Amino acid sequence: MPARFTALVDSLPATVPFVGPETQERARGSAFRARIGANENAFGPSPAAVAAMQAEAAEAWKYCDPENHDLKHAIAAAHGVAPENVYVGEGIDGILGLVVRLLIAPGMPVVSSLGAYPTFNFHVAGFGGRLVTVPYRDDREDPQALIDAVRREHATLVYIANPDNPMGTWWPAADIRRMVDGVPDDALLLLDEAYAEFAPDGVSPALDPADPRVLRLRTFSKAHGLAGIRVGYAIGAPALISSFDKIRNHFGISRISQAGALAAIRDPGHVARVRDEVEAARARIGGIARANGLVPLPSATNFVTVDCGRDGAFARRVLQALVGRDVFVRMPGVAPLDRCIRIGCGRPVELDILEQELPAALEIAARG
Amino acid sequence: MPARFTALVDSLPATVPFVGPETQERARGSAFRARIGANENAFGPSPAAVAAMQAEAAEAWKYCDPENHDLKHAIAAAHGVAPENVYVGEGIDGILGLVVRLLIAPGMPVVSSLGAYPTFNFHVAGFGGRLVTVPYRDDREDPQALIDAVRREHATLVYIANPDNPMGTWWPAADIRRMVDGVPDDALLLLDEAYAEFAPDGVSPALDPADPRVLRLRTFSKAHGLAGIRVGYAIGAPALISSFDKIRNHFGISRISQAGALAAIRDPGHVARVRDEVEAARARIGGIARANGLVPLPSATNFVTVDCGRDGAFARRVLQALVGRDVFVRMPGVAPLDRCIRIGCGRPVELDILEQELPAALEIAARG
Repeated sequence: MPARFTALVDSLPATVPFVGPETQERARGSAFRARIGANENAFGPSPAAVAAMQAEAAEAWKYCDPENHDLKHAIAAAHGVAPENVYVGEGIDGILGLVVRLLIAPGMPVVSSLGAYPTFNFHVAGFGGRLVTVPYRDDREDPQALIDAVRREHATLVYIANPDNPMGTWWPAADIRRMVDGVPDDALLLLDEAYAEFAPDGVSPALDPADPRVLRLRTFSKAHGLAGIRVGYAIGAPALISSFDKIRNHFGISRISQAGALAAIRDPGHVARVRDEVEAARARIGGIARANGLVPLPSATNFVTVDCGRDGAFARRVLQALVGRDVFVRMPGVAPLDRCIRIGCGRPVELDILEQELPAALEIAARG
Repeated sequence: MPARFTALVDSLPATVPFVGPETQERARGSAFRARIGANENAFGPSPAAVAAMQAEAAEAWKYCDPENHDLKHAIAAAHGVAPENVYVGEGIDGILGLVVRLLIAPGMPVVSSLGAYPTFNFHVAGFGGRLVTVPYRDDREDPQALIDAVRREHATLVYIANPDNPMGTWWPAADIRRMVDGVPDDALLLLDEAYAEFAPDGVSPALDPADPRVLRLRTFSKAHGLAGIRVGYAIGAPALISSFDKIRNHFGISRISQAGALAAIRDPGHVARVRDEVEAARARIGGIARANGLVPLPSATNFVTVDCGRDGAFARRVLQALVGRDVFVRMPGVAPLDRCIRIGCGRPVELDILEQELPAALEIAARG
């Protein structure tokens, strides 16, 4: 055998967390007509962000500012925290990997929900952590059960998304605050708020940014419409934030991305407009689902998870039939969540296609 | 104490490999007039790459293609290898981190040269590797001594840059091939060719891409003038290339960066023009150095390392005086390399400033 890998690496499967729509398009030999599967923001980024990125393109011969100084300060100002509370990283995905690396040595337990974000599980496995899962309850993550598992397992890391992906459901801020209160002093709650901007008021809790027990995760990928630029951020206690410096890829963020994110965070009006569009799209997806005898789950995100009313095999057939009819959607991976498919808040033209294709997809799926 | 870090993380210093020029500018309160310290390509990217990135900016709401399919295929075609031989990653820095993670468990030896690329050492430390260093010989890395150290230490990972950073020196292809031949079957040579496009013909060796003992590293940061987009790539054996999938940040590359890199690799004419500009700048820096009684080292890169003729303290004073006169330069970190400063191939206007400020900087430094 050639270069020898670590025992840990040898033990890892060669699976990937997600297959991109481009991969599917290459396999199909044709493009999707509706790209509503990856929880992207089809309403796009702020025109100010686009202009800033276009202007920065010619400056791309320079390395980025490795401190992300201007962006970090703008994020801090937007959230009313100090720059020392903010870490800017390569998307929430990248930050999740770093947090696991900071806290988890091989064999240590990490708590998440069964069916929650696969990329977090990928990183836990990648550093040898032992994933401990708690079932969803009524299609919501179960904060108390997660905390119970942390205490039972003496875990130092626990993950929750609020609002949740893949279900779209959420907890009010008070419940999340109660969860934080239950985190042991030597543990850390990763509070993934990727979809926070789409949620009603009162979902994102006020938290003490000096509390070492919680790290809040945000992103430019969703409400800001900048999934392609790979910028997320974390808000937490300075001792944790500064520890990223020990292991991060210091020049890891594109200079163009820095410019785009900075312009985006300075344009809250765009996020407000996106929120309105998303709310309208959620209502329309709900209507399309109900018109086809399906049950849309309540959503505080930019997607609607739709209960297809039968088992995972049926929902998978619905999904495959939609994909076969040029509609890119995804679905939760494990039972009982996998009785659902997950439909993104596309533009009206994409939802027209969904509306047109869903009846036939259901008919194909029903044939078995 | 709050969240507990792994013992490894607790053992790491909070140092960073490089301080960016923006950080220095903020501390100084003014901008540099000559940005010639970070080995950037002041002649900029291909206009086709700029146009491609500007066009892609409005599409930044979509995630990137996590397979980097089009870019990977274009790179493979440019190098005459198969796509299975190519890994596209977040700059050579990001790839170095992944390689160390794949191969090095805590305590394992890793071989490099004393004074070579600090970011590689940062990653070795970050995964608990034990760095074994070999001195430079006559301002060049010493391939035979590196291989001797690998065999003596039973190391599985060894690093060399050809051409070298920070010295700018190089070995002919035949010497590198001989080095590869000396790599044990269970070890991997990281051949960092970040500066390969600036080297004379006959420096980058022909290598069997199926040889599991060597991984060739290239980047868009240097000759392509795209340091800010964070794209590098590795060429090697398929079993090693595919192993990155186990641990990488799958959606980690900006969509805009993908578009820029693709356009850049399709414009070899731009690289040829940059090479001419760099050659002229190298000659001019050499002339400026000699006119001031300093000795420019031969260079196959886009910078010239200049021997200041005394010790590290003197060279550091020269550097500080240049920085104080708005000329951003860097220098090697350890003796005896640190008798030199490293001057980048800036545009003529920047070299005018260097020419103007160097005499005064030397005078200040001579005062002690």
